[in-house]
Amino acid sequence: MTPDGEIVQTGTRARKSSAGYDLTRLFVGSEGTLGVITEVSVRLYGMPEAMSAAVVNFPSVDQAVSAVIETVQMGIPMARIELLDAHYMQLVNAYSKTDYPERDTLFLEFHGSTAAVADQVAQMRTICDEHGGGDFQWAEQEEARNRLWRARHSAYYAALAARPGALGFTTDVCVPISRLAEAIHGVRAQVAQSILDSPILGHVGDGNFHLIFCVDPDNRAEMDEVQRLNAALVTHALQLGGTCTGEHGIGTGKLHYMRQEHGDAAVALMQRVKQAIDPKNLFNPGKTVDC
Amino acid sequence: MTPDGEIVQTGTRARKSSAGYDLTRLFVGSEGTLGVITEVSVRLYGMPEAMSAAVVNFPSVDQAVSAVIETVQMGIPMARIELLDAHYMQLVNAYSKTDYPERDTLFLEFHGSTAAVADQVAQMRTICDEHGGGDFQWAEQEEARNRLWRARHSAYYAALAARPGALGFTTDVCVPISRLAEAIHGVRAQVAQSILDSPILGHVGDGNFHLIFCVDPDNRAEMDEVQRLNAALVTHALQLGGTCTGEHGIGTGKLHYMRQEHGDAAVALMQRVKQAIDPKNLFNPGKTVDC
Repeated sequence: MTPDGEIVQTGTRARKSSAGYDLTRLFVGSEGTLGVITEVSVRLYGMPEAMSAAVVNFPSVDQAVSAVIETVQMGIPMARIELLDAHYMQLVNAYSKTDYPERDTLFLEFHGSTAAVADQVAQMRTICDEHGGGDFQWAEQEEARNRLWRARHSAYYAALAARPGALGFTTDVCVPISRLAEAIHGVRAQVAQSILDSPILGHVGDGNFHLIFCVDPDNRAEMDEVQRLNAALVTHALQLGGTCTGEHGIGTGKLHYMRQEHGDAAVALMQRVKQAIDPKNLFNPGKTVDC
Repeated sequence: MTPDGEIVQTGTRARKSSAGYDLTRLFVGSEGTLGVITEVSVRLYGMPEAMSAAVVNFPSVDQAVSAVIETVQMGIPMARIELLDAHYMQLVNAYSKTDYPERDTLFLEFHGSTAAVADQVAQMRTICDEHGGGDFQWAEQEEARNRLWRARHSAYYAALAARPGALGFTTDVCVPISRLAEAIHGVRAQVAQSILDSPILGHVGDGNFHLIFCVDPDNRAEMDEVQRLNAALVTHALQLGGTCTGEHGIGTGKLHYMRQEHGDAAVALMQRVKQAIDPKNLFNPGKTVDC
């Protein structure tokens, strides 16, 4: 629904179309600044015949990331590929009562026919071996897979639990996969010199990763420091050809990176679109493109 | 480059981003009405370890389409899946000096590791058998695959060659895959009653298909009839939840379907975007959203 109160349907059920501007994509990620999304249709996919999940650890983040890059280059269709660093694995073990080796670790999942999954697993195993990966822990049954992913998905809470009462401050840059190890090294070097500490978690198949700083909101030094670290991380990600936010969005917190990332002309274009659709600036004023 | 002469870069090398409006998607398909695209970056993919192409024929379009639907539902990752009807196979054989059975036919291609391709081929074979498919002709070597796809890609010229001097008029609807057989039946019934005739070619994995009418541009009755048939086809596709153009675009020829497909409010939104970015209407005036 647009700011005029008009109801617009932004697409059809056809899988592709070239009929005019792609309003669906314009509204996706507009953070409520162009209208309110009142109805969403999603595409369903069949359950794959076979699913297999695994946890595999590496001597270093570099080696884990190299394995991911090679996997992507080989075109192996991974359903999920997530990185938790050694620090994070300690927190996960403490929180989820698991006993994973506390090393830099990939969580993997493969989907497909039984034969295709077996083949992907074999290829991935070879790639991981070449990069020092060891101790694959497999989970093929649904219950075991759920346990594995529960440990992964409770990672945010595992980090918070390590410092009760703290506020979680999550970073969210995304860089070209070829620069991922460099981006992670950069921020680790910054954190090593800092009063704050953070584990690292990455959706590494996309080059997107998060640090989760647990800060005391009443401690001015910590709040300043987390902003400084985040700024350094974002600036580095932009230098590497990346984006200030992979999936969490701009809101107000990242407004001041919009020009740095896109340039003045692109921001002006976004602002014209906003003004054309919401001329009275009624919808989420001050957000996303108001920079 | 926008109508203001500003150069805008619409994205980064990161695989995903949520930093503001998706200008790349806004410009893709805008048909030059919002600016001129002066530079494009494409993502490269590695060559798959194995590729295998096949031609398989069916007793009817219904059965070919049912095989496609089942393939999509099974999640078999097809690299290409194209339909040529019996009429089209006659034209292809005549033009490309091939000897394919002149029945409703799928052209298929599988990519992946050797084991994955073998598995996909076996699954596809089973599905085709269940829908009356016969006489798989395989092409695994590059030369044989190229010959097969050359026959497919010269289909447009094969149609034109059957009526020298004629003008090719190509239709381009896309419907939900579940309605694809219905859409093809509908237009075939119309064509059966018409002074014109056309073979049918479909990118059926997407629900997108084309008729290629070869008309005499000086014959008013033929020119009127092809417009009437196209209008009936588009109207039917919209009734089935599809789009008036899967990939060829709006231009001026399909401007009058924009409101029928999107509704007045969505078209008004597109027009506001156009006006905001190109207020003097300098870029491709009269096209795409000027309806």
